[in-house]
Amino acid sequence: MAGIAESATANPDASFIVHGDESQIGPMIARKKALAGRCQIRHAPRVVTMNDKPSQVMRHGEGTSMWSCIESVRAGEATVAVSCGNTGALMAVSMIRLRKLPGVNRPAIACLWPSRNSGGFSVMLDVGADVKADAEDLLQYAMMGASYARNGLSLERPRVGLLNVGTEEHKGRAELKAAQDLIAARAEAGGYEYVGFIEGSDIPGRRCDVIVTDGFTGNIALKTGEGTAKLIADFLKEAFGANLLSKMAAVLALGSLKRLQKRIDPRRVNGGVFLGLNGTVVKSHGSADATGVAAAIGLAARLAQSGFHERLAARLASAGRAGQDAPQDEDATPGAAEKR
Amino acid sequence: MAGIAESATANPDASFIVHGDESQIGPMIARKKALAGRCQIRHAPRVVTMNDKPSQVMRHGEGTSMWSCIESVRAGEATVAVSCGNTGALMAVSMIRLRKLPGVNRPAIACLWPSRNSGGFSVMLDVGADVKADAEDLLQYAMMGASYARNGLSLERPRVGLLNVGTEEHKGRAELKAAQDLIAARAEAGGYEYVGFIEGSDIPGRRCDVIVTDGFTGNIALKTGEGTAKLIADFLKEAFGANLLSKMAAVLALGSLKRLQKRIDPRRVNGGVFLGLNGTVVKSHGSADATGVAAAIGLAARLAQSGFHERLAARLASAGRAGQDAPQDEDATPGAAEKR
Repeated sequence: MAGIAESATANPDASFIVHGDESQIGPMIARKKALAGRCQIRHAPRVVTMNDKPSQVMRHGEGTSMWSCIESVRAGEATVAVSCGNTGALMAVSMIRLRKLPGVNRPAIACLWPSRNSGGFSVMLDVGADVKADAEDLLQYAMMGASYARNGLSLERPRVGLLNVGTEEHKGRAELKAAQDLIAARAEAGGYEYVGFIEGSDIPGRRCDVIVTDGFTGNIALKTGEGTAKLIADFLKEAFGANLLSKMAAVLALGSLKRLQKRIDPRRVNGGVFLGLNGTVVKSHGSADATGVAAAIGLAARLAQSGFHERLAARLASAGRAGQDAPQDEDATPGAAEKR
Repeated sequence: MAGIAESATANPDASFIVHGDESQIGPMIARKKALAGRCQIRHAPRVVTMNDKPSQVMRHGEGTSMWSCIESVRAGEATVAVSCGNTGALMAVSMIRLRKLPGVNRPAIACLWPSRNSGGFSVMLDVGADVKADAEDLLQYAMMGASYARNGLSLERPRVGLLNVGTEEHKGRAELKAAQDLIAARAEAGGYEYVGFIEGSDIPGRRCDVIVTDGFTGNIALKTGEGTAKLIADFLKEAFGANLLSKMAAVLALGSLKRLQKRIDPRRVNGGVFLGLNGTVVKSHGSADATGVAAAIGLAARLAQSGFHERLAARLASAGRAGQDAPQDEDATPGAAEKR
């Protein structure tokens, strides 16, 4: 609730529909001045826990706050949904209630990543919606990621890279070589520039704005990066606490260190965006504090205001039409064209 | 050559066989006092470049310093090989000349990773020998990684974790579930403890000593971690250079910062070890300076002195025998047992 109040102040045009047990959240909202007149409550008596299995929630999730939240996007009451809940369950409920966009095979989760790019961030997807992706899926990730970078990071023509174990043409898995050809061929339709294969070391670099990979590799890269940043931050804290001199140094460098902390603060990049559904869903870290929740809501508001969802859907539809001339359609059975 | 000299001082029992153009390396060795009487030279007129394709080097690599170096391990003149050259070519030459250990399907490259473990490091493999691995390969990685941790990190009973996108039993790819069962079942024979699935955030953590994964995922995790550490180090440098106060702070904190730098210095963990061959090969970073080269040679010397290679081969052989009682052998065709 503190995060909603923070984001209400930062986004004066936003209004909120809050889902949960009314007897609990009603009084909490009433206590926040920033939320006066800007919140509606949808009573939902049940909750999805972090241990609930996605398949169970998909079948029996009605009446939970998560279900109610997604339902408000489906009904068109809300432009975008934000949740701090169980990721697998949230994706399952989003899939079953919002349904996939026409032409999308696997939805993806996109995250922002601190990098050396001029805006300070890159987009990476998929970071965990699905453990695998074939060449066509990776092409769709490129399309959706570019659309997200255009609307979320204000980049006119985002640079897309495909994550691999080396930058040479002959390296990596077979599906990556196939995806490379597809992504390069559709750059014009997708409104992006394709920079080729990139390596793990390029993720925080400046070679591209959108990092395309399957959800298994993306999830492990994301968590490895977060874990490494956390390890170094802890080592740094120890280093400054080591002796009197270093403690004095920490006081002197306070301003600079705070700026550094802000640059690598995971709370500032909080919010994985579900792409490829009929509606936008932003997933916040389960352990997010008020600052983190406010960042996720801020991202959701930015995407809603830019008309991101409509633009993404239009881009995928036009790319789908362009794709009908592509070589893989030559194998289409007679009559298939009529169904399109 | 400066790295060899550094390691000669640090490892008084080691002696060196240096491979390369004698007219170039002869005078360089003569100038290093630390190397007096401790170096033999094997003249090799040709070199493998970073752009040479592994398949080409495999066929036409004779006469190169890399080939000569691996050959000295094959002939039993050298206990362990160290090279800073082209990784793919080095693996190809090692495979063709040293051959795989009996029972090993895919050799692996193992690296050390700074972590919160008491020794300060974990072992991760495979970090790039092959882009894929099935359940049996992952079991062999667990065996070989545990053997490496026992001999390289002096851990009696290393804890092995299998890298996945979540720690729950039902998560991840099918081959990981199969590998999980195999690795858990052979813990006794392999002399390790199996801790279950781990996530990317556990790589720099304290949950396990050996991280098992396929070469695609491992390579991306390794480079993502290195890239993230480099990004933060650069941000830190900028932060301390920001203004007069922060510059003064840097001077005060110099000692602590130097210790921090040492803890995360990639040169200290320089050296990927090729496992699963008839001989040990240590691959140093191509861009390593004298400190990095000395670290790789130091690692090689430690492994040679502990009799690592013989222990690993013995462990795999006994595990192979134990495996004959395992369930998957029930399908064996009649008569197959005689061939064992």
